[in-house]
This record gives sequence, structure tokens and C-alpha cells, in this order.
Amino acid sequence: MKDVAARAGVGLKTVSRVVNGEPGVTADTERRVQEAIESLGFRRNDSARVLRKGRTASVGLVLEDLADPFYGPLSRAVEEVARAHGALLINGSSAEDPEREQELALALCARRVDGLIVIPAGHDHRYLEPEIKAGIATVFVDRPPGLIDADAVLSDSCGGARAGVAQLIAHGHRRIGFIGDQPRIHTAVERLRGYRAAMEDAELPVHPSWVSLGSTAPERVRGAVEEMLTGPEPVTAVFAGNNRVTVTVVRALAGRERRTALVGFDDIELADLLGITVIAQDAALLGRTAAERLFRRLDGFNDEPAHMTLATRLIARGSGEIPPQ
Amino acid sequence: MKDVAARAGVGLKTVSRVVNGEPGVTADTERRVQEAIESLGFRRNDSARVLRKGRTASVGLVLEDLADPFYGPLSRAVEEVARAHGALLINGSSAEDPEREQELALALCARRVDGLIVIPAGHDHRYLEPEIKAGIATVFVDRPPGLIDADAVLSDSCGGARAGVAQLIAHGHRRIGFIGDQPRIHTAVERLRGYRAAMEDAELPVHPSWVSLGSTAPERVRGAVEEMLTGPEPVTAVFAGNNRVTVTVVRALAGRERRTALVGFDDIELADLLGITVIAQDAALLGRTAAERLFRRLDGFNDEPAHMTLATRLIARGSGEIPPQ
Repeated sequence: MKDVAARAGVGLKTVSRVVNGEPGVTADTERRVQEAIESLGFRRNDSARVLRKGRTASVGLVLEDLADPFYGPLSRAVEEVARAHGALLINGSSAEDPEREQELALALCARRVDGLIVIPAGHDHRYLEPEIKAGIATVFVDRPPGLIDADAVLSDSCGGARAGVAQLIAHGHRRIGFIGDQPRIHTAVERLRGYRAAMEDAELPVHPSWVSLGSTAPERVRGAVEEMLTGPEPVTAVFAGNNRVTVTVVRALAGRERRTALVGFDDIELADLLGITVIAQDAALLGRTAAERLFRRLDGFNDEPAHMTLATRLIARGSGEIPPQ
Repeated sequence: MKDVAARAGVGLKTVSRVVNGEPGVTADTERRVQEAIESLGFRRNDSARVLRKGRTASVGLVLEDLADPFYGPLSRAVEEVARAHGALLINGSSAEDPEREQELALALCARRVDGLIVIPAGHDHRYLEPEIKAGIATVFVDRPPGLIDADAVLSDSCGGARAGVAQLIAHGHRRIGFIGDQPRIHTAVERLRGYRAAMEDAELPVHPSWVSLGSTAPERVRGAVEEMLTGPEPVTAVFAGNNRVTVTVVRALAGRERRTALVGFDDIELADLLGITVIAQDAALLGRTAAERLFRRLDGFNDEPAHMTLATRLIARGSGEIPPQ
């Protein structure tokens, strides 16, 4: 680490921050440290160390959907950390199917990965208990594990949604709709909880027709927008529960004369040009934090499992600041 | 296959189309066939068959960048085909570094994957010859292999760019800029070739300041836009060589008073709402075609290696149809 610090021209604490994926390092500094690590061949040492321990130098990642842009930076970050530790990343996606999640996680265990990072589709992870006991380090990310005690790295879904809805309220809205993902998905429920909390904070009632959870298929979301805007208690603003929902809500609202305010959970590419106000989570930081935790476990870190929650960030770009019509 | 056809209520030919990833099947029919395949446990049979042959039932995918949205649907499609064949997908990304590509591909071979799908970063793939001779099926996708003979599935980069530039010419442009990726990337060169061909078709000269290849980093692309618009022979239209370039060009043009026409290679999410005209390639079809080819090879198909080229599609949405100012 001393050599890396000297070559990168930074202090030891900065190297430690980069290696452990902690905040407070600029992109440029991080790049220099990573370059120093690579040019000094840290990876090879790590690899040798892993092999000495009788490990396979591979970790598994069970994603929800490889094609969802939210998971791109997350897997990329996991891969970078794995690579820095000389380990190969094996991944696959559950397509939001609990059975497929289990099948994939166990297939990875059968291939003797050293550790697993799981974005769970299901709510019962007791099937992993024998694997965890057998020494396979396991960290959950984006959503918590069900019925077992394990490390998890989550975004503050409830707090983020609460801040997003509060933004709409601050701009004069009283009738606000919430369109979210399936109610069996933890983040969907947490974001709904944040919506309800913000409404309660402002002592606003929530009409039953203002809340719609379900598939993120465009037809379903379009229908929900339509109902909320034309129902008996039409909303003047919509909070969209994730990136897939936001994209469809933006399309649905684009064709309408009356302007409807919108805040979406998750940032989206080109949202800046479309002026979409979002609650951004840092997908890369989620991945990096989870992966660093996993390698700390593989390195012998033996504390009780913990759930870490990362803050979200409101980015006001206009759509959330449209006043009620 | 008869059982699958009966359960899905379709003909044998349709099942064959779905299994082989051929076109001409609606999304709904494909879903029904996939469901029939899964409920009849085809996957398990495949897996058993693979295991009987002494295989490891895993394939490797070497991507360029896990976080590039173009590769999301591509890897998802490869995974779906692998899954239908009972094989696990192991992937990683080269980050456009030829050494890292080689290191990753050989690490996957060392783990005894049955086959490899490679989006190459480098131009010399002779390092894979011993592996291919040893029986590891290998298919290249998105870019061709270098110095070896192997299967490849490519998009028609040259034809697509030619059609996109022709669209700008058809709308009255005579001075058109081309901003592309690094010149060592095959698709960048092919798309530039398409640009030159379209200009030549219309007997238009190409001023040297109109062509800019290099990194897709926003600063570099912004600089190129600036130079082309303010140089001695200012352009009235820009052709962007890939999705990363398009995103930055759109941002750079958004702040300017004079409207500049734009056609981008690759479709982008929300491009419809921003009215961006694009040359779309089908990333999922690229992935599926490559993966189906790989499994045909694993099944004993033994013809000479071939390069397959998939057509691109012009989607006119307004930005490419802006007349010269």
C-alpha cells in the first residue's frame, strides 16, 4: 500500500479509501490509485493469496435483469473490485423469478465460487444457509435477504421517495399519484412507504386511486397514468417508483396538453435534456460497497452481518417543479 | 419439440424458429414457446446431454463494457440462449483493453468453459488458436476476430452509416461531420467508411476537419462538435458514430441557437422523446445469433467459420430531418 501511495502521489488513507470503496475520493485520484495498483501488480499478489487459501478466485453475482440499465454500473463496479482482488466474476440474472434466483445461486455455489453477491428476487433465502455455513461469503445488494441474517447494501428507498414527494408538495401539489413496481419487491414497498410518509408529513390524505403497484410493462404503467389523471380525484403530480416506470410515465405525459409534475426514482440517461427531476441512487457505489464487503469477509472479517444504507440524492431538473395546473 | 409445439399451440417450424433465434415470431408466441420449453423441462435434458459429453455446461462472454447500455440486451440474449441449453454464463469485460481481453478469455478457458463469445478489444486473436484447437467453440460478436478464422456475427456498420448520412444528404446537407470512436475499433472504421461512401455517392467532398475519431469521453466529443461547427468550413449536420458519442453530441447541440441536424448510430433510450434520428442495430439479435451459433458448434456443427452480417434500420425522428440553416 505504501508503494501504491507513493506511485499515485497520494496518502495511505486515500489508497485505503479507494481499495475499500469509501467515499471522499475524486474520480481522477481514484483512477491514479487504480493505475498504480495495476502497474504494481497488486492483483497478482491478491490472486496468489487467494489461491494459497484454496479458493477458486471467483465470485458469483445474481442480478435481477442484465438488460436493466440500473444494473450495468452495479455489475461493472462489482467486476472492478473482483478484478482488483484477482477474482473472476460469474454472473447471471433471475428475471425477477425467485425459483430462478435459487437455481442460479445454487449453481454458482456448486461451481465453488468463493462468494456470492445477490440481488434477490425472492423473500426466503434459507436455501443459502448450508452454503453460507460451508464458508461461501454472501452479500445482498439493492434488496435485503429474507429469513436469514446476512450482509446487505441498500439504497435509502424510503427516504429517497419521501424527499421526492416532499419536493412535489413544496411546489404546491396536494393530489399526488404513486406508480411503483410489484408489491412483492422490497424497494417498491419501501418507496411507497416513503410516499405515504411524505403525504402524512404534510397532513395530506391519500386517495386509494392514487396508488398503483404492479408490473413495469409499458401498457400497465400507461393505464395507471391514464386512470390517475382522469379519475374522480385527478392527480396533478406523479411519483414514479423506478427507472422503468419513469420512462413510460414520461412517454405517457408527453402526449398530453395539461402539464403534470413528475419525480422519478433512479436517474436515467438523457433525463437532464428532458428536464426530468429524479431521486438518484449511486448504482456503482452500491456494487462497489457490496463487493468490498464480500472481499473483506473472504479476508477473514468476522463481525455480525450488517445492513448498510446508502443515501439518495434529489436532482431537480424541472419536471418536479411544475406547479399544479 | 413435438411436445413443445403441442403445449404452446404452434407448429414445429415456429418452435424451431424460437429455439434457433430466427426472426418471424411475435413476442407473444415466443413467450408461449419458451414457457412450454420450461414447463416441459427441456433445459434439464439439455443439461444432462451436455454433461454426458463431458462438458462443463458453461460458456464465457467477454464484453467490452458491462456498463454500456448497448451490451445489456446483448448479454441478456446470450444468457437466455445459454439458459435454454442448460449452461451457465460467465462473463467479464475488457474495458477496451486488448491485454485485458486476452487475460480474461484465457482465464475463462482455464476454467474450462465449453465455448467463448468474444466482443474483441484487440486485433490479434492468435492467442486463442490453441484453445480453439483444444475444442473450445468460439464466436465473435459486434467486431470480427483478427488474424484467425472464426465465426463472427456483426451489424452492417458500413451500410448503416451510409444510410444515415444519405438521410442527411437527402434533407439538403452538403457539409456533414463524422464523430466516431477510436480508429483501432473495427466498427468505428466501418462506420467512417459508410460515411465516406455516402458522401462519394452524392459527389460531395469531405473536408479533413469534418472527420474526428477518438475517445468517446464527453470532453473530446464536445471539442470535436465545437470545432466542426465553428471551423473554416462549418458543418450543418453531424453523424455520430455510436451511442456514447450521440449522447454527448445531443447535449452539445442542445445549448446552441442554430439548429444542427444529427443522425446517431445505435438507438438510445428516450431518443424518441428527444426526436433523435438513429441507425438502430438489434443488440439482442446480435447476442442471440452469436449464442445460437456457439451452441450449434457445441452440438457438432462443423462447417467452415463464417461472418454473418445483420441489417440495421433507419428510424427518422426529426433530428436527421432538420434542413441546413
